[in-house]
Amino acid sequence: MAIEGRNETNTGPIRLGMVGGGNDAFIGGVHRIASRLDGKYQLVAGALSSTPEKAQASGVALGLAADRIYDDFKQMAIREARLKNGIEAVAIVTPNHVHYAAAREFLKRGIHVICDKPLTSNLTDARKLAKAAAASDALFVLTHNYTGYPMVRQARDMVARGEIGTVRVVQVEYAQDWLTEHQDFKQAEWRTDPARSGAGGSTGDIGTHAFNLAGFVTGLELESLSADLHAFVQGRRVDDNAHVMLRYEGGARGMLWCSQVAPGNENGLRLRIYGGKGGLEWFQEDPNYLWHAPFGEPKRLITRNGAGIGGAAGRVSRIPAGHPEGYLEGFANIYSEAAEAIVAKRNGLPVPADVVFPSVHDGLKGVEFIDACVRSSSRDAAWIKVG
Amino acid sequence: MAIEGRNETNTGPIRLGMVGGGNDAFIGGVHRIASRLDGKYQLVAGALSSTPEKAQASGVALGLAADRIYDDFKQMAIREARLKNGIEAVAIVTPNHVHYAAAREFLKRGIHVICDKPLTSNLTDARKLAKAAAASDALFVLTHNYTGYPMVRQARDMVARGEIGTVRVVQVEYAQDWLTEHQDFKQAEWRTDPARSGAGGSTGDIGTHAFNLAGFVTGLELESLSADLHAFVQGRRVDDNAHVMLRYEGGARGMLWCSQVAPGNENGLRLRIYGGKGGLEWFQEDPNYLWHAPFGEPKRLITRNGAGIGGAAGRVSRIPAGHPEGYLEGFANIYSEAAEAIVAKRNGLPVPADVVFPSVHDGLKGVEFIDACVRSSSRDAAWIKVG
Amino acid sequence: MAIEGRNETNTGPIRLGMVGGGNDAFIGGVHRIASRLDGKYQLVAGALSSTPEKAQASGVALGLAADRIYDDFKQMAIREARLKNGIEAVAIVTPNHVHYAAAREFLKRGIHVICDKPLTSNLTDARKLAKAAAASDALFVLTHNYTGYPMVRQARDMVARGEIGTVRVVQVEYAQDWLTEHQDFKQAEWRTDPARSGAGGSTGDIGTHAFNLAGFVTGLELESLSADLHAFVQGRRVDDNAHVMLRYEGGARGMLWCSQVAPGNENGLRLRIYGGKGGLEWFQEDPNYLWHAPFGEPKRLITRNGAGIGGAAGRVSRIPAGHPEGYLEGFANIYSEAAEAIVAKRNGLPVPADVVFPSVHDGLKGVEFIDACVRSSSRDAAWIKVG
Amino acid sequence: MAIEGRNETNTGPIRLGMVGGGNDAFIGGVHRIASRLDGKYQLVAGALSSTPEKAQASGVALGLAADRIYDDFKQMAIREARLKNGIEAVAIVTPNHVHYAAAREFLKRGIHVICDKPLTSNLTDARKLAKAAAASDALFVLTHNYTGYPMVRQARDMVARGEIGTVRVVQVEYAQDWLTEHQDFKQAEWRTDPARSGAGGSTGDIGTHAFNLAGFVTGLELESLSADLHAFVQGRRVDDNAHVMLRYEGGARGMLWCSQVAPGNENGLRLRIYGGKGGLEWFQEDPNYLWHAPFGEPKRLITRNGAGIGGAAGRVSRIPAGHPEGYLEGFANIYSEAAEAIVAKRNGLPVPADVVFPSVHDGLKGVEFIDACVRSSSRDAAWIKVG
Repeated sequence: MAIEGRNETNTGPIRLGMVGGGNDAFIGGVHRIASRLDGKYQLVAGALSSTPEKAQASGVALGLAADRIYDDFKQMAIREARLKNGIEAVAIVTPNHVHYAAAREFLKRGIHVICDKPLTSNLTDARKLAKAAAASDALFVLTHNYTGYPMVRQARDMVARGEIGTVRVVQVEYAQDWLTEHQDFKQAEWRTDPARSGAGGSTGDIGTHAFNLAGFVTGLELESLSADLHAFVQGRRVDDNAHVMLRYEGGARGMLWCSQVAPGNENGLRLRIYGGKGGLEWFQEDPNYLWHAPFGEPKRLITRNGAGIGGAAGRVSRIPAGHPEGYLEGFANIYSEAAEAIVAKRNGLPVPADVVFPSVHDGLKGVEFIDACVRSSSRDAAWIKVG
Repeated sequence: MAIEGRNETNTGPIRLGMVGGGNDAFIGGVHRIASRLDGKYQLVAGALSSTPEKAQASGVALGLAADRIYDDFKQMAIREARLKNGIEAVAIVTPNHVHYAAAREFLKRGIHVICDKPLTSNLTDARKLAKAAAASDALFVLTHNYTGYPMVRQARDMVARGEIGTVRVVQVEYAQDWLTEHQDFKQAEWRTDPARSGAGGSTGDIGTHAFNLAGFVTGLELESLSADLHAFVQGRRVDDNAHVMLRYEGGARGMLWCSQVAPGNENGLRLRIYGGKGGLEWFQEDPNYLWHAPFGEPKRLITRNGAGIGGAAGRVSRIPAGHPEGYLEGFANIYSEAAEAIVAKRNGLPVPADVVFPSVHDGLKGVEFIDACVRSSSRDAAWIKVG
Repeated sequence: MAIEGRNETNTGPIRLGMVGGGNDAFIGGVHRIASRLDGKYQLVAGALSSTPEKAQASGVALGLAADRIYDDFKQMAIREARLKNGIEAVAIVTPNHVHYAAAREFLKRGIHVICDKPLTSNLTDARKLAKAAAASDALFVLTHNYTGYPMVRQARDMVARGEIGTVRVVQVEYAQDWLTEHQDFKQAEWRTDPARSGAGGSTGDIGTHAFNLAGFVTGLELESLSADLHAFVQGRRVDDNAHVMLRYEGGARGMLWCSQVAPGNENGLRLRIYGGKGGLEWFQEDPNYLWHAPFGEPKRLITRNGAGIGGAAGRVSRIPAGHPEGYLEGFANIYSEAAEAIVAKRNGLPVPADVVFPSVHDGLKGVEFIDACVRSSSRDAAWIKVG
Repeated sequence: MAIEGRNETNTGPIRLGMVGGGNDAFIGGVHRIASRLDGKYQLVAGALSSTPEKAQASGVALGLAADRIYDDFKQMAIREARLKNGIEAVAIVTPNHVHYAAAREFLKRGIHVICDKPLTSNLTDARKLAKAAAASDALFVLTHNYTGYPMVRQARDMVARGEIGTVRVVQVEYAQDWLTEHQDFKQAEWRTDPARSGAGGSTGDIGTHAFNLAGFVTGLELESLSADLHAFVQGRRVDDNAHVMLRYEGGARGMLWCSQVAPGNENGLRLRIYGGKGGLEWFQEDPNYLWHAPFGEPKRLITRNGAGIGGAAGRVSRIPAGHPEGYLEGFANIYSEAAEAIVAKRNGLPVPADVVFPSVHDGLKGVEFIDACVRSSSRDAAWIKVG
């Protein structure tokens, strides 16, 4: 992947719009930095808030032209689709329950969609969105951003090449502590409201990342799960801790733990996988490292762009080993992968084979996972078939 | 606890016998070092193998007097009980299925028993042994040795003092890799034979340690569990990987993972517990450290005998901070705790209140745990009430 | 510091030019990403190589307008200074020996300079450049980028607030391994050529970063040093390993080690400082952590944007704790600090008091350090007064 | 090395006496545990304090026979040499200034000496002691205990086998914090008194360990050094922090830092060595790990008794990988190596070739190192030839 837009056969950066992400939103700012980092996008339009005043103020603050600041996403989709230099892609960074309605408007007008996870707040919407994406010629990119980390790509590549043998055991977890006590602020508020976040709390907000990551790296398909969800903080309407046992097709077994009430864990996404020939361990907070334990040999610490690194990781890495890249770079990799696909489309070319990004199908699987967790837990952790 | 025997009001070290632990046995040598380390025991008799020639050779190699080397444990129990300076305590380090029969002989003759874990190879024996211990005036000490680590004591003490609030979540795991492939050597052979090891494989060999450790530190009693056990290596008759969801009395939830097929994990016993006010994390391979995360403050790394250490850890530590103690010292702490109790008994005194060691009741709980795991798994991970 | 340009009272991003940084250059790409990351600059002109064809090709690849691609920096300085919307700032990312000549042309025309380190390849040039900067109304910003890391700011702030008492001991090191064997590629080639790099090899390339970092965090001024420089690879004309003892004004003592022949070290810049009341430790490869050891208390792991973080770090951090930022974000902080200063200048306002970036004076000190190392080593590590 | 005495062709454990090590002494207890751990020694006599009452009380507390408790070491040497079953070896664990006088008495009577480090408190005594040892048929073993760690043996073996190529750079440090403030207690008191400790403070107490370790692992001989010693705590009469540059025969260069005023460092002995083909890193506080970085390959974490371990480490290790051994086990290895040599002598056999322990020559080098540091520092860190 070319870092910076310089080697593309296009004429300038991709024109990007944004839905949601006004002042005070966390993830909107992340998407903007991610889009900017490699110089492949330019933000030119936005419907940045469901509150018109805030949408306006946010647009001005971001330096958008006055006539490209919209009060609602539908209006933006309609007008931008008609403009000669209207947006080519839109980033959807609203609370979950809005994803479907927003994405639909752009997909049906042929505007590529880059959407935050989880795909939707419920399974019905997820299925409709999957259909809408299938029916559209536009691309749909889901920002399961952790799949953008170079060492995650490295792990995936090593599994695919058989370096740890057939995967037997998956241990994946995502632990945070920010909801250890009751919280009132905006991030906490919508993320713990089932109407906006979905029926899953920690499962939807972070468990779905963990589940996606395990599938991305191992290539395994989930067969069934047994989930024990719980809300430890009084009055909380969604789970803040979940214990899930996983059975994958082909016989691998797994455990998934997600929690937002685990003091001392900031953003503790950790994946450990074990096969008949070796093991791999990766931790999001130290993302430039990947432990590889070939059975019967000393463990090796593989580093981003370090000795022995493979091409799958190298192509999404910008700077030399020892110069750490982080969350924003991993997120930017999703954007830059998407840019390669978008530019290929722009030029009537097929998407290059080495371009990798999470799709609407991954998103659907994620919502199925959340849904299955909630149903299993409501039936005392009964096994639920998935997919 | 006094390191070395010097301050006791007794006359010399405790006279110790051993059942099992002949040449080539791993755990017998560990028990002997543990008994020696603080100078409180002297090994004077042994029935070191079920094979008479090996029992003799092993006894000679250990420097035992010829008339204190026995071919079988019953003979040893009978004769030592009659000797003027016969053994005061016996270490039982045989495969699991022999524990009950051996322990019974010594208990009923008033000889203190220090027994390796798990208590027995099945629940029937475990219950009988619990009764035998209750009926005896002799002490019964189970070497769940990980409870002897100073930082485990520190963690237990901090939980008891409320430093992390009410415990909500328990994450405990014990991962190894030595059975990743089929193994023939002796350690592997009896540990994977249900007749000698018990119906649990990894659950019995290491899962029971993990379960015990979680209970020891948190003080929580298990209410029910749901277990998914599996043998990944073809032909193996017991589980080599287990995923278990735990529900504790009072509402705490937990997950337990044990595995002997996880490449790169040597002896990975790890405990993480989270309460409403903070978290604690401990890892057996780096046992001199304890992470304490008070919610809303930076994490602290508490070290054995380091700044801020409490008395519960300090009394089972020998040397200054930064001078690492390890597995043998933790094991020796169980022996030295037992020694304090034995010497108190010898002198007609009550066992001091600060002496802590795993009892036959802990052992019974451990076997109930194994039994429940096996039953749950055979019923597709149904919830099983425990205790 | 506002992430993104949105709250500035300006009219659009800062117009930036670049000298050096053509295809294949490492540090030019880093400067471009850094300038882009927060959306405060737009690259509009460049003299990207000393080879005209490469300068042209590189400019086209970066999407520069044809008339803003220059063959040499002087021509660029002259023309851009006359343009209505000419560049406001220039990034100088050439090999060291060009820094002075290039910077001079822009400074004297009132164009702000953002220059890579070390300041120059020799002390004469450094002094002239310091004078040129003093004589100009334009800003001079030196990209000692490691000072941009949030946890480095945190450490500096903690020292300034007296949290570790009077600093007594400084241990700073910068170890790499990429020159362990003889290398021919471009990065290695000019960095080991005294005519372009300067008389210091590892001392100039990385030792100066280490020296700068120690001074930045502690606020200490060097008094004298004793240096033992060595080239281990046959035929190398500059040092590839240096051992330096430091004496600071006021009595603190230090050691500095820099090496490019230490296998296993990728970019191992590490700072440890100890005062009468505590210690601080930071490592560039894991930049989101800062160890704080208050004497007599357990060590604490302070994290970027985590619990207990101070404002000095918070203002240069973009995303929540546990979401790692890396080298590029730290580098971008230098650019964004410079942007705040440039925008203030643009608006006729004083540079805000909390804006911090390395200056020409820091650069002069760095070259004095290199010069002193080389002279000391040539006199068998005699003590050399500095400054 | 056989763990436990069982396979020796002797008749019982080695009879050991002790000089120093009465109640409250730290290192005496360590020596006793070390001697006991593998069952190869029995403590039977002692002159445990220079204060007669304390010598008596300490002897009783340790369970010594009344007629084997002595008031002074000379009396003990004379009588024990005459006894039929008198001591075969003596452990000398007094303050440094007593080592020579005590050792001499035992050496000249053919009693093996196991002596704590540094060898003596001054160079004159060290030379005399070296002569006394040379003149005696008895063994002289110096407890530079860190050479007993299995992973230190592994490192030494890897260097000897050429796995990292010719050693170029040595970075060794030993940092503690217990003298950060003025201290009155006994350990601090004699260790900061030049008359008892020697002219070196931190250099003598810990720097000598660091120096010895570097030499032990690399096999390099020191040529000259330049030292900058300092006492940061007011009124302290010996150095509490030392910076030393090293030049080894053959061209390797090194740095040594030792400090007792570095808050957060408990017992931070760390060795890093770099050659033309790779690097090795070891840290005493996590002694079961050894990092090996073959140049151009990922780093490997070698573990005690883990995959890929060599025989030099394996023979001084007792338990499987993942079951940590610590300081006491490393110390015990010195005792058990000495036991092999003593038993060989007892049986008229040569000392086995694989037995390794620090000798009086290592001790002499250590005192020469301390002396050179003090002299260099007094001459403003002039280079001093050593040896």
